[in-house]
Amino acid sequence: MSVQTVESIEGFRKVLDEERRAGRTVGLVPTMGFLHDGHASLMRRAAAECDVVAATIFVNPLQFAVSEDLSSYPRDLAADQRLAEAAGVTWLFAPPVEEMYPGDVHTTVTVAGESEGLEGEIRPTHFAGVATVVAKLCNIAGPCRAYFGEKDWQQLQVVRRMVADLSMPVEVVGCPIVREPDGLALSSRNAYLSAAERRAATVLHRALRAGADAADPVEAMRRVVAAEPLAELDYAEMRDGRLLVAARLGTTRLLDNLAWEGPSDNHKALEG
Amino acid sequence: MSVQTVESIEGFRKVLDEERRAGRTVGLVPTMGFLHDGHASLMRRAAAECDVVAATIFVNPLQFAVSEDLSSYPRDLAADQRLAEAAGVTWLFAPPVEEMYPGDVHTTVTVAGESEGLEGEIRPTHFAGVATVVAKLCNIAGPCRAYFGEKDWQQLQVVRRMVADLSMPVEVVGCPIVREPDGLALSSRNAYLSAAERRAATVLHRALRAGADAADPVEAMRRVVAAEPLAELDYAEMRDGRLLVAARLGTTRLLDNLAWEGPSDNHKALEG
Repeated sequence: MSVQTVESIEGFRKVLDEERRAGRTVGLVPTMGFLHDGHASLMRRAAAECDVVAATIFVNPLQFAVSEDLSSYPRDLAADQRLAEAAGVTWLFAPPVEEMYPGDVHTTVTVAGESEGLEGEIRPTHFAGVATVVAKLCNIAGPCRAYFGEKDWQQLQVVRRMVADLSMPVEVVGCPIVREPDGLALSSRNAYLSAAERRAATVLHRALRAGADAADPVEAMRRVVAAEPLAELDYAEMRDGRLLVAARLGTTRLLDNLAWEGPSDNHKALEG
Repeated sequence: MSVQTVESIEGFRKVLDEERRAGRTVGLVPTMGFLHDGHASLMRRAAAECDVVAATIFVNPLQFAVSEDLSSYPRDLAADQRLAEAAGVTWLFAPPVEEMYPGDVHTTVTVAGESEGLEGEIRPTHFAGVATVVAKLCNIAGPCRAYFGEKDWQQLQVVRRMVADLSMPVEVVGCPIVREPDGLALSSRNAYLSAAERRAATVLHRALRAGADAADPVEAMRRVVAAEPLAELDYAEMRDGRLLVAARLGTTRLLDNLAWEGPSDNHKALEG
């Protein structure tokens, strides 16, 4: 079945209500578009686990600060439709900004704790914008399983917490990061990178791998990023057993993260 | 059909999902219990307009400041069950606090503008607590018409705005204030009043009626409250064509409001 694009809130709500009324479970994949194989992996997973898949494409102004890349954020709806269709999406919700926010938005959803530090320190209003738009998209979509990539690890924790605290009728599913062959995590923002920056951008994954194998992972990650002249570190931290790194390549901010399971036995032996 | 009381989130969600699956529309009446005829009027209206009525009874800690009357707030579940049943309620959701908030709540819904001034000035965290719990109750209840009394006028505006901004699948219905024969607006907090305070409490309605008939309604309301020795004014204001008054009778805070349609012709003639 080919993908159907819906632009209105009431239209999207209606088609998914009808799917559920017919007894079908709904998988939801919220995105900002300019889709890549990371998004496709979420859609394929949703298609494997749910009867029908809906994806949303909305570059949400609320989650960009004035100084950030809202106006330059890459967009390509025709390509997105092709990718979504190939990945098993039936309903694509691509609302204009005026449909989502016809006037001032007075309502904000904030998530203390999970939103603090890391991205929340560098982008103080970012996660309120994310939580608010995810709440709105879920309210429109209705009961569903919602798929989010682990690449935006902190965002996933924020969404999980919001859904639990507000008893939203949503099951949040986190999905593994998809990487280029050289280790770079897929991101729509990779499109901003120059050829030289693209080569240097593997530094995030290299830093995480060094951290995963070190007794002092934060120090190891910092050392790897410091050795890359084109990269400037925003943070390298460990939280809840996860290594997280953010760095700028020129004007492009990239994120990555990896599970940390303690130093390897080999490493311990060397230390001992 | 007799009223059924449900204590668990999943249980309440399930019975209302089943009602909708059977094609029945759901009316929701969120309350803090200690029900009176004002609540009953909401329930009867919901019963007239919807196929099945659900009411919730939850004294929500999030909307009380530390100094406020959370622990002393009046409760009487058995009486509430009888009133709800007589008013046409089928499902009564009365969750324990631990069911609604099993641990720390990190997520807060705030509504700028509508929450500011009036109650929001005197109770700075109140409307965030209200918006958060109403969002949660609506997420649990699912698509419905939700009935709120106009007695808490500012709360009604906060809820309307949240529902619109977040595209919640809820139609908010505001219902007229129910009054005692002497004009006092029904409120669970009226139970706190001594006999003398109860007699003096008509001052709120008297002030509103004086304001409704005056060229300077705020001044008129203030004058009426100032003349009542047992009452202390918190505010008397006009907002969006509504006169709003709050006053303390001893330690009990009472609210009331009334539409303002401009000074009467009679009054204008006298002024001219």
